[in-house]
Amino acid sequence: MATATEPVTTTAPAATEEPKTMEHISIICSKGTLDMAYPGLILANAARMSGIEATLFFTFWGLDIVTKKTAEKLHVSTVGNPSMGMPTMLGGLPGMEAFASTMMKKEMEKLDIPSVSEMLEILGDSGAHMYGCQMAMDMFKRKKEDLVPQVEDVISAMDFFDKSAGAQVLFI
Amino acid sequence: MATATEPVTTTAPAATEEPKTMEHISIICSKGTLDMAYPGLILANAARMSGIEATLFFTFWGLDIVTKKTAEKLHVSTVGNPSMGMPTMLGGLPGMEAFASTMMKKEMEKLDIPSVSEMLEILGDSGAHMYGCQMAMDMFKRKKEDLVPQVEDVISAMDFFDKSAGAQVLFI
Amino acid sequence: MATATEPVTTTAPAATEEPKTMEHISIICSKGTLDMAYPGLILANAARMSGIEATLFFTFWGLDIVTKKTAEKLHVSTVGNPSMGMPTMLGGLPGMEAFASTMMKKEMEKLDIPSVSEMLEILGDSGAHMYGCQMAMDMFKRKKEDLVPQVEDVISAMDFFDKSAGAQVLFI
Repeated sequence: MATATEPVTTTAPAATEEPKTMEHISIICSKGTLDMAYPGLILANAARMSGIEATLFFTFWGLDIVTKKTAEKLHVSTVGNPSMGMPTMLGGLPGMEAFASTMMKKEMEKLDIPSVSEMLEILGDSGAHMYGCQMAMDMFKRKKEDLVPQVEDVISAMDFFDKSAGAQVLFI
Repeated sequence: MATATEPVTTTAPAATEEPKTMEHISIICSKGTLDMAYPGLILANAARMSGIEATLFFTFWGLDIVTKKTAEKLHVSTVGNPSMGMPTMLGGLPGMEAFASTMMKKEMEKLDIPSVSEMLEILGDSGAHMYGCQMAMDMFKRKKEDLVPQVEDVISAMDFFDKSAGAQVLFI
Repeated sequence: MATATEPVTTTAPAATEEPKTMEHISIICSKGTLDMAYPGLILANAARMSGIEATLFFTFWGLDIVTKKTAEKLHVSTVGNPSMGMPTMLGGLPGMEAFASTMMKKEMEKLDIPSVSEMLEILGDSGAHMYGCQMAMDMFKRKKEDLVPQVEDVISAMDFFDKSAGAQVLFI
């Protein structure tokens, strides 16, 4: 890395001749905290608003985002998140997580950002495709009917790759 | 974001004419918790099973996944992980992390999911390419012989980019 | 997943005929911990050193990386990070986070890895493009002048997609 300290003067390559556009964004949502649920939902929504195809694959803890019982109960992670500006000990106090979650939800409401359930409805209406991960479903013993109706199907990682051919794939 | 509350009615773009397939998935594994080690290994395995080329680059805490001494000792993160359904204070109690890790390992065994070391062997046998990150090796003072034999080489981020040209790149 | 235990013997697909090169990497930085700030900055720097175009989009907690007041005060997350080799209870003790952050900074200095502010300067000089996320700016009540001068503009997620067409997009 020593050379990294010297400024690199090469200019960024010129934009390629042919105009490129993003066609499809495919997002793997693996985390179930409120602050990691929103980025996936917001990016997918921005994609649809730009006419970009959007596919979401909910796996591991991310399955909570599309599980009826938990979708509206996601919490912000306060511990181990120095950016919250809260010392770790304080973050670990009972109630702090609920407090931070309430604060974040209020702040997002002020900005007209829909709740998680509302985001899922908007995404469904907009033509985004949402899938649950078969393995995570088995691991957490969930059934298709435990998931919000916007989830089209429960599929394997291999199926997800099929559906993501040519897409820009993100892992959240 | 105000406009996001209005359903977007544009339909998803029709599939493009030429049939696309995913050719190569390249995964940067930067985390050393059990619950963030598995997604990378499982996605790489699913890729290989679909005939998709798979490259894994282990960096930062992710180096633990391919370090002989730690590969079988990764823990689930219980604190700051609201999805675990455990209050933060409880998650922080001594032994809870080990308990959650044991539970997760048992659950994955029931589903016939191999252990981390077994996954690395399967991946190596399947033709997946695995690399350690030079900078992380230096930072954690590890040597090539500290890593599992499936790791082909220790390379720089620039080398990784060379090997990932045309791939769908994920950061976990 | 049962079949995953059987080694997959298909060999990796041969490199395609036409030589591919990576042209553009576009990184969404959503986390504000020191250990998750560096990967994005280092990857972007490696990209520029390889002549690859680099775009960085700072959103959610990642906004702290490019905020003047916080850029040099990012902490390593010690709690809920089993890879630190610290029991959770110990990680939660007052001062442990600062201690771990100091240790990591020293280790990175030894390897000639620049500080976060220096990395941002190097990236700016190298022609990398950096943007703040409008929604996160609103949420955290920050103004353009609160950000380091290397941030060119504050843009929406939709604008970010426009700028990332054809790029390999990573979410950190």
